[in-house]
Amino acid sequence: MSWLPAPQEPLLRVAVAGGTHGNELCGVFLARHWLRCPEELKRPSFSAIPILANPEASAICRRYVHKDLNRSFTSTVLSSKATPDEPYEVTRARELNQWLGPKGSGQAFDFTLDLHNTTANMGACIITKANCSVFAMHMCRYLQLQSLELPCRVFLFQPSGETFSLDSVAKIGMALELGPQPQGVLRADRFSQMRALVASSLDFIELFNQGTAFPAFEMEVYKNFGEEDFPRTEAGDLAGVVHPQLQDRDFEPLQPGAPIFQLFSGEDVLYQGDRTMYPIFINEAAYYKTHKAFIKTEKIMTSVPALPPLPSALTHSL
Amino acid sequence: MSWLPAPQEPLLRVAVAGGTHGNELCGVFLARHWLRCPEELKRPSFSAIPILANPEASAICRRYVHKDLNRSFTSTVLSSKATPDEPYEVTRARELNQWLGPKGSGQAFDFTLDLHNTTANMGACIITKANCSVFAMHMCRYLQLQSLELPCRVFLFQPSGETFSLDSVAKIGMALELGPQPQGVLRADRFSQMRALVASSLDFIELFNQGTAFPAFEMEVYKNFGEEDFPRTEAGDLAGVVHPQLQDRDFEPLQPGAPIFQLFSGEDVLYQGDRTMYPIFINEAAYYKTHKAFIKTEKIMTSVPALPPLPSALTHSL
Repeated sequence: MSWLPAPQEPLLRVAVAGGTHGNELCGVFLARHWLRCPEELKRPSFSAIPILANPEASAICRRYVHKDLNRSFTSTVLSSKATPDEPYEVTRARELNQWLGPKGSGQAFDFTLDLHNTTANMGACIITKANCSVFAMHMCRYLQLQSLELPCRVFLFQPSGETFSLDSVAKIGMALELGPQPQGVLRADRFSQMRALVASSLDFIELFNQGTAFPAFEMEVYKNFGEEDFPRTEAGDLAGVVHPQLQDRDFEPLQPGAPIFQLFSGEDVLYQGDRTMYPIFINEAAYYKTHKAFIKTEKIMTSVPALPPLPSALTHSL
Repeated sequence: MSWLPAPQEPLLRVAVAGGTHGNELCGVFLARHWLRCPEELKRPSFSAIPILANPEASAICRRYVHKDLNRSFTSTVLSSKATPDEPYEVTRARELNQWLGPKGSGQAFDFTLDLHNTTANMGACIITKANCSVFAMHMCRYLQLQSLELPCRVFLFQPSGETFSLDSVAKIGMALELGPQPQGVLRADRFSQMRALVASSLDFIELFNQGTAFPAFEMEVYKNFGEEDFPRTEAGDLAGVVHPQLQDRDFEPLQPGAPIFQLFSGEDVLYQGDRTMYPIFINEAAYYKTHKAFIKTEKIMTSVPALPPLPSALTHSL
């Protein structure tokens, strides 16, 4: 695995986004709360900025108004010329790119954390791109150590083309998934867990900014290698459901020949792959439409090099 | 408690409706499956008719398109004259009333069961009107005895005005709620449970039609006496969430002084009532919009008289 080098300066321009999907309510209500009470996001060396990423979708409690905002941060969308009848999320993606980016530029925010919920039994899961910064991996490790009661897995997501998510706009970005939580529901337990994880991620940035060194470590990570659709009728309708033996078993090993679907007619559909895999986002509500019953991942042990301390001249100037 | 008299003839016109709310997927997919394979709803004396009640809302996986279909079976809506720009659900309510009713008439279906899911931890819950038929109470009892692994409560719902739900159109109607299941998700366990409960309800009708007598019994039922809204900011936004000690505790006793909400500021909100109550539909996604964090009920022990057998002349003619 190759990692991008660690930042050479303190991370001062930091954003925490919620409501990128308007029916994933932990992020929606945390963002709204922080917009009223921003002091919760302050640390000695910086203040993270709260962002309600898709206010229109949040207002109607839907994932999006016209198209998925979290698939809209592509060069095509971001460089497109505004038109009066374009989808709301295209306009909003351009606005956010102006604010937090421009994507890929030196003016981009140092760090963005984007908050999501899933209906799948994922626990906490940090999603970052496969060739992310060594800084991001150390933050993941820090969150794992701070959150021992809640499993906190790391999913290195490799898109088939360019990156497209909100967090890809900043110099270092990651998404935090937390589940299970139904769409349109705010659970106290998930809300507290997400709030604590955000606080820990800001604490980690503060430690780094203050010149803390972090030693090398080994870590289990998950990498995607495919997707599985539901069984369907000839007309394209669902012909079955995620098998009860697979439901809620995100991140657990699935062996070839194990049941993955139960048809409405009663028969089982077995996993046809030739190797153990680790399904995630099992039965996520938002993925029925995009023909994903789950995402296939492999589990890899990886070595992360040490994160060197910032030069003291930089930390003393804070 | 007063009960309407038992039917004097076999119940031959029976309907099972799903997708009255288009994002409650057990009913949506059961209805679609039965429309392809109706033999599952056949019994020797009758064939129940499957109905996808709100096909347009089901197609887009939303509760409704323009307005809640399950609040639309009122005399005002049903007697209204069609207009070109009326809400879709008004048109659909009139259609269903023509098919299954007319509501309150002798031509109405003998029995309708309407299938719902909730995000609340309700288990199985049968909802019927407070002064329902003694037949409905015997069916509830039968379902409880058939479904010993899954709690199956009976909620006698007293609306503040006239009845408005789809099941109110038939001579005898009830709704089956099953949860927890997120909106837009189909879980194998809930799907199987609902399918089994529908099968048992049809079996019960068959037993009745064949002339079976059912003895009197005592039963716990829940009756609504109010609702509780979330705590809100001055602007009307949520100021807190269902307390972790209340979340998932549907049908459990709640004592005066017990915590019911946790404010985002950290404080608890306590239940101010002066008597024990039994909250249900706790944190149901669809009720945020209608300002209900939960519905307050009281638990009552009630006596249900025997259900006499149909005269043998009627059962022999089947």
